Amino acid sequence: MSPLELDRDPAWLSREELDAARGRLPILYVDAVPVRVDDRGEVSALGVLLRLDGEGRVCRELVSGRVLHHERVRDALLRHIEKDLGPVALPRVPASPQPFTVAEYFPTPGVTPFHDPRQHAVSLAYVVPVAGDCAPQNDALDLTWLTPEQALDPGVQAEMERGHGVLLRQALAHLGRAV
Amino acid sequence: MSPLELDRDPAWLSREELDAARGRLPILYVDAVPVRVDDRGEVSALGVLLRLDGEGRVCRELVSGRVLHHERVRDALLRHIEKDLGPVALPRVPASPQPFTVAEYFPTPGVTPFHDPRQHAVSLAYVVPVAGDCAPQNDALDLTWLTPEQALDPGVQAEMERGHGVLLRQALAHLGRAV
Amino acid sequence: MSPLELDRDPAWLSREELDAARGRLPILYVDAVPVRVDDRGEVSALGVLLRLDGEGRVCRELVSGRVLHHERVRDALLRHIEKDLGPVALPRVPASPQPFTVAEYFPTPGVTPFHDPRQHAVSLAYVVPVAGDCAPQNDALDLTWLTPEQALDPGVQAEMERGHGVLLRQALAHLGRAV
Amino acid sequence: MSPLELDRDPAWLSREELDAARGRLPILYVDAVPVRVDDRGEVSALGVLLRLDGEGRVCRELVSGRVLHHERVRDALLRHIEKDLGPVALPRVPASPQPFTVAEYFPTPGVTPFHDPRQHAVSLAYVVPVAGDCAPQNDALDLTWLTPEQALDPGVQAEMERGHGVLLRQALAHLGRAV
Repeated sequence: MSPLELDRDPAWLSREELDAARGRLPILYVDAVPVRVDDRGEVSALGVLLRLDGEGRVCRELVSGRVLHHERVRDALLRHIEKDLGPVALPRVPASPQPFTVAEYFPTPGVTPFHDPRQHAVSLAYVVPVAGDCAPQNDALDLTWLTPEQALDPGVQAEMERGHGVLLRQALAHLGRAV
Repeated sequence: MSPLELDRDPAWLSREELDAARGRLPILYVDAVPVRVDDRGEVSALGVLLRLDGEGRVCRELVSGRVLHHERVRDALLRHIEKDLGPVALPRVPASPQPFTVAEYFPTPGVTPFHDPRQHAVSLAYVVPVAGDCAPQNDALDLTWLTPEQALDPGVQAEMERGHGVLLRQALAHLGRAV
Repeated sequence: MSPLELDRDPAWLSREELDAARGRLPILYVDAVPVRVDDRGEVSALGVLLRLDGEGRVCRELVSGRVLHHERVRDALLRHIEKDLGPVALPRVPASPQPFTVAEYFPTPGVTPFHDPRQHAVSLAYVVPVAGDCAPQNDALDLTWLTPEQALDPGVQAEMERGHGVLLRQALAHLGRAV
Repeated sequence: MSPLELDRDPAWLSREELDAARGRLPILYVDAVPVRVDDRGEVSALGVLLRLDGEGRVCRELVSGRVLHHERVRDALLRHIEKDLGPVALPRVPASPQPFTVAEYFPTPGVTPFHDPRQHAVSLAYVVPVAGDCAPQNDALDLTWLTPEQALDPGVQAEMERGHGVLLRQALAHLGRAV
C-alpha cells in the first residue's frame, strides 16, 4: 500500500492515532505475491504494481497492506488484493496460515533486506494465485505480469522499493524456481 | 493407492521388478488430502475414500500413490487425484514444492505413525483444494466429504489405515484448525 | 506471558497506552514451544509452564509474549524464552523466519481455536529446541516436560488455556508425530 | 555424494542393481545446506564442498546423498553430514520433517533447475546448523565457509554443479536473506 493510499484508507484509526501507534508498536502487515498458474499449478507469471513514489519516480511494488483490528489474516489478504487488483481477480487465498516467509520492515535501512521509512512493520508473506481479471486500482499506474525469468531482471529489481525485489525472489525460491 | 490397483497400474515396472525394488529401496510416494475451500480459502470439508481392504473390511484412505520414473511430483499428484476422484475434480495443485509434511511408511509398525506392510515408502504430503465434481473411481466404494470436526471423530479415525488418520490430523493442524 | 507479568514488563508503552493500542490494532506476538531433542533431532519432550490464572486456578501455558517496537522477531523469541525458562536455557532459535503456524487470538471465543480476552493478537509460532538448564521464572509455578504422548493427554489439554492445547498439538503435527 | 563415492558406499544394492533401479524409479535423496549460526540463530556462514569432477575440474557441492532402504530421513541426513563433514560436526538435524524445498533432479537438463546425469532423483532439502569441527572427508578437496553475500557471488555460483547454486540461493531465501 502506498503512503498516499494508506491515508485514504477508511480508517479504524485516525491518521494521528495511527502515526502514534507506528512510533510505539510493530504494525502487522500482509504481503501478497499474485501469480498466474497453469493447470498443473506451475507458476507462469508474477504480478507487480507500478506506482509513482513520493518524488514522482516510477516504482514497482507487490500487494501489501495492514491487518486491521479484529480482521482475520485471510480477510486482510483478500481486501488488499481486491484493493490493488480489482473486484474480479478471483484470488485463491492459501488454505494454510503458514506464510512462506515473514518480512521485517525497519525504518532504518540495512537491519533486514526490508525497509519502510514510515514504521516498523512485520509482514506475513503469501503467494496467491489469481484466476480472474486483474486491473490496477486507485493510484497504481499499471499492473505488469512478469515471467519468472523477467522477475529476476536487474532492471526490474532496481525499480522495486522497500525490499520487494528481495521478497519477489524469495517467493520464486519458495516456488522451486531458479533465483 | 490400494494393493489391487497398484498391480493394475500401466507399469513402468513389471510387478516382479517392482517387488524386487521394494525390497531394496525406499519408494517415493505422494499423499494428497483433497479439500473443499470457500471463497476466503477456509477449508470446509476434507475428502476421504472408502475401500474394501484385502480382508473385505471397509477402510478409509487418502489419495496416495507412487511417483513414476521421469515424472514430476506435481504430475504424480494430478495423476493420482484424477485416478481416485475422476477427470473433472479440477485440483489446484500447490504452486510450491514444499510439502506440509513427509510421511515415512515402514513395513514394521511403530517406527513412525505410518505403516505400509508392502514396502518402505516415503511420501510428500500436500493439501489439494479441488473445485470440480469428484466421484470415486476404480475400486473405491465411495468418497466422503467430512467437516474438520467430523474428521477428528474417533470412529472415522479408527477406520483409517496405514496412519492416514494421523496424516489427516496433521493436515488439519497445518490448516490452522483444532486437532 | 501472563497478564500480571505483562504489566511488569519494562514498558516501551505505558500500561494506558498499551491498553489503548489493544483496542485499535492487532498486537504482534511470538509463541514458542520449547522442546528437548536427542542427537538425531527427534523430539523427546515438550516444555509447558504452570501458572495460577486470575482466579487462582492452576493453568498450563506455552512461552508467549509481545514483539516490541524495533525488535527483531528472533530477539523477541530469545527474550521471552529467557524470561520464562531462565538465562541458561540455551535456546536454538530457528534460522528461518518461517513459522510453523500463525495463531490468531481473538477476544471473542470461537472465531479461531485461539482466544485472548485482552486483545486481538496475531502470533508467529515456532518450535524451539533448548539444550541448557531450564527453570520456571517470575510468576510461573513450575515447568513440566511432557513426552509427545503425555502432551496429548485430555487432562493436560483441559488445563491449557487460550487455545495453547491446540497449538501444542499443531506443533506435534508439524514435528511429524501422531496427534 | 560424488559419483566415485557412491560406488564405494557400503551397498544395500550392488552397483548393477542400483544402476538398474536408477533406470526404473525415482531415487530418494536428501540435500543438506550446512550452516554456522550465532546465538540468535542468525546464519553467519554456509558450508560448501570442493571436489574434482569426472573431468578433473574443481566443482562445488552441497552435502547430498541417497536415503537407504529402512533408513529414516533424519538418519540419512546424519549419515551424509558425517560422511562429508566428519564425525564431530555436531549437526542439529531439524526436529520437523518439513523440508524447505523438494529438488527434482532429472537426467535431462532444463526440466527443473536441478540436473543429475546419472538418474532421476528427488531430494528433500534441509538447512542444518553444525556446531562442531568440520573437515572435508573422502574425496572432498576442501570445505569452504561462505558468508551469505559470498554465496551469491557469480564465480561461486558458476562452480556449483547440478543446480546446487540454485539450491544454495533457495536456502538463503528460506533463511530470510537477500538473494
